[in-house]
Amino acid sequence: MLGCGTVGSQVVRLLGEHAADLQARAGARLELVGIAVRDTAGERAPWVPRELLTDDAAGLVARADVVVELVGGIEPARTLVLQALESGATVVTGNKALLAAHGPALHGAAARGGADLYYEAAVAGAVPVVYGLRESLAGDNVNAVLGIVNGTTNFILDEMATNGLSFDQAVALAQELGYAEADPSADVDGHDAAAKAAILASLAFHTRVSIDDVPVTGIRDVTAEQMAQAAESGHVIKLLAVARLNRDARGISVRVHPALLPATHPLAAVRGAFNAVVVEAESAGRLMFYGQGAGGAPTASAVLSDVVAAAGHKVHGGHAPRESTYAQLPVLGPESTAARTQVQIGLADEPGTLAAVAGIYGDNGVSIESVHQQRSDDGVARITIISHVSTEAALERTVAGLAEEPRVHEVISVTRVEGE
Amino acid sequence: MLGCGTVGSQVVRLLGEHAADLQARAGARLELVGIAVRDTAGERAPWVPRELLTDDAAGLVARADVVVELVGGIEPARTLVLQALESGATVVTGNKALLAAHGPALHGAAARGGADLYYEAAVAGAVPVVYGLRESLAGDNVNAVLGIVNGTTNFILDEMATNGLSFDQAVALAQELGYAEADPSADVDGHDAAAKAAILASLAFHTRVSIDDVPVTGIRDVTAEQMAQAAESGHVIKLLAVARLNRDARGISVRVHPALLPATHPLAAVRGAFNAVVVEAESAGRLMFYGQGAGGAPTASAVLSDVVAAAGHKVHGGHAPRESTYAQLPVLGPESTAARTQVQIGLADEPGTLAAVAGIYGDNGVSIESVHQQRSDDGVARITIISHVSTEAALERTVAGLAEEPRVHEVISVTRVEGE
Repeated sequence: MLGCGTVGSQVVRLLGEHAADLQARAGARLELVGIAVRDTAGERAPWVPRELLTDDAAGLVARADVVVELVGGIEPARTLVLQALESGATVVTGNKALLAAHGPALHGAAARGGADLYYEAAVAGAVPVVYGLRESLAGDNVNAVLGIVNGTTNFILDEMATNGLSFDQAVALAQELGYAEADPSADVDGHDAAAKAAILASLAFHTRVSIDDVPVTGIRDVTAEQMAQAAESGHVIKLLAVARLNRDARGISVRVHPALLPATHPLAAVRGAFNAVVVEAESAGRLMFYGQGAGGAPTASAVLSDVVAAAGHKVHGGHAPRESTYAQLPVLGPESTAARTQVQIGLADEPGTLAAVAGIYGDNGVSIESVHQQRSDDGVARITIISHVSTEAALERTVAGLAEEPRVHEVISVTRVEGE
Repeated sequence: MLGCGTVGSQVVRLLGEHAADLQARAGARLELVGIAVRDTAGERAPWVPRELLTDDAAGLVARADVVVELVGGIEPARTLVLQALESGATVVTGNKALLAAHGPALHGAAARGGADLYYEAAVAGAVPVVYGLRESLAGDNVNAVLGIVNGTTNFILDEMATNGLSFDQAVALAQELGYAEADPSADVDGHDAAAKAAILASLAFHTRVSIDDVPVTGIRDVTAEQMAQAAESGHVIKLLAVARLNRDARGISVRVHPALLPATHPLAAVRGAFNAVVVEAESAGRLMFYGQGAGGAPTASAVLSDVVAAAGHKVHGGHAPRESTYAQLPVLGPESTAARTQVQIGLADEPGTLAAVAGIYGDNGVSIESVHQQRSDDGVARITIISHVSTEAALERTVAGLAEEPRVHEVISVTRVEGE
């Protein structure tokens, strides 16, 4: 084992407590031969056998059949995982950043070494969505994946929606409860979700997708007022990872952004720090996988299921599903990416203004699904416009056009609409 | 392929339409070598190649690497599946009745033949809960499984709850829409759910559980009035398959019955003919798998994922997860099965009656969580009592005691309470 933090120490505990069960399932006794940590003298959970601690990670990798990488981040994890795979050791990792940035290199090393790479714990903790996409949907074609894959931001948005907290108040509460880091940017700016989106899209569409292919909008600009308005119109706002096949353009789009979802959508009911991934498949229809997306024990559960599978293959033969990239679909740009938006603008409350706004939509080829106007006392009307499906590029041009129109005082918000 | 009904004809269609995708994923071209049917001259979907039809099922089994059994029922499916497995052919089946009645014999034949047995399609259609329990939770210990595993009854109960239909009206609507058979008893009496409960419990607890181990109560006695009362108290009524580990008694309980669930429980939101299975695991916590539990294309998706896995193992080596029965836990009787109930009784509206009722609970060692009394004009009070967790046997004795108490006019209903 490489690393012994929150998840790693739970893996050590469960390997010991459930040794007999795990042996019965894997067909062999699982022996923990070493735990590589930076500081062998540091404080550890009481059940961590200190005699197994070492600071020689490379030496440990060289003598293990299965390497469980829970270091996180790119280096030294990348070098150690590559070393393990090239030497034929199975790697079980929960390292989404490494997979999303260097997936092809890892899979290439696995192929060269004849080794297996498992990463259920890298996406949505205990939620078995990697198994789901790699194996359960191997006989189907995926049209779209929509996921709540970051529990911290889901907790924050849920607190804003349910208890009316501001963004800053909700972040502070998440920090207090241990859901958010002191620097919450990896979560709230969507980078953690983007790494998971790249992994999910790679699996769903049999195509290599890197984190660099994933445009990201985080949740810093979501206001309590927007959340309340969403509720009034029967919606919720969730931070979604969205990957979608565009059959006409023969490509895929992958995005992370806050989105309005109808309150009746299965993802709308995902509360607190839970994760869930909806897969829309051609034959299966809509599937959802739901569970705890983080935390020591839930993530350790995913790690151990991979370890049991890895050990079972060492005993009985066989391999993990290999990287599947045969489809090689291009990742589409904004001109080919389908999208819908809700735009809120403030504009002069005078005749002809609405016609001008509608004209900007029409000039950009975007049709309008609904318009709601809210008058105020100060001569400024607030209008909420939901579009039909168009392209991301056309929607961006529309917003640019609105911003240039003199009678539009302000573009208050632009929010994606999903799930219908 | 054995059988070519609703699911089988979709499997044939998808094998043709997605041949290239399936080949890329399995590592070999999948060739449909024959389709055994009773009547080779009968009407078929236009895409079914008539030259592959045969009425010699045993002959077909003898020349196939993978046998897809979609005949259903016990015979001739049992004989053909045993023949296939003993000769070393992989079997992919959606036959829950066969598995729940003869699972040990099938797994035994697979072990003797060195063959693999796949059955994702046998439980909850497209919902990958067999994968989930066989593989994703291999590193965890399951405490309980609660499932809505019969779409027909969920549709009927949902119509009763949402649109106020009576049981008979809802059954008629389900028949009209093709969700229920002309004779709906296999669904409404819970036998279909019981077969799935046996399979889920076997997987979850690494123990052989047969359909004969599963006491069943169907939904015929659920009334529209009960549904409305459940809604008033913030609950729904669902037909649940429940399998639970009792650590103290070192055994498991498996049951199918209608149950009151809090409206906030994830299973409460499962509408229409959808299926969902909640797994409560020691480390992972609560997981849910949700999707379409029946229908040609969704079930075919599950069959094809198994076929791809089977073909992949033929090409690359390895095996399906073997039957795991090492835990050998006993299936507990009512004296050791934990349960909670809601009991509704009509009783004389006079002093001392409630004390007598409470006394009957106390005498049987059952503690009461809540009592609600509703007075009526005719001197008969209606009382709703929800118990704390007790044993099934003690709850049965309590109901028997209530029925014998002269001041109790009627035991109106007894409903299990789950999910808290």
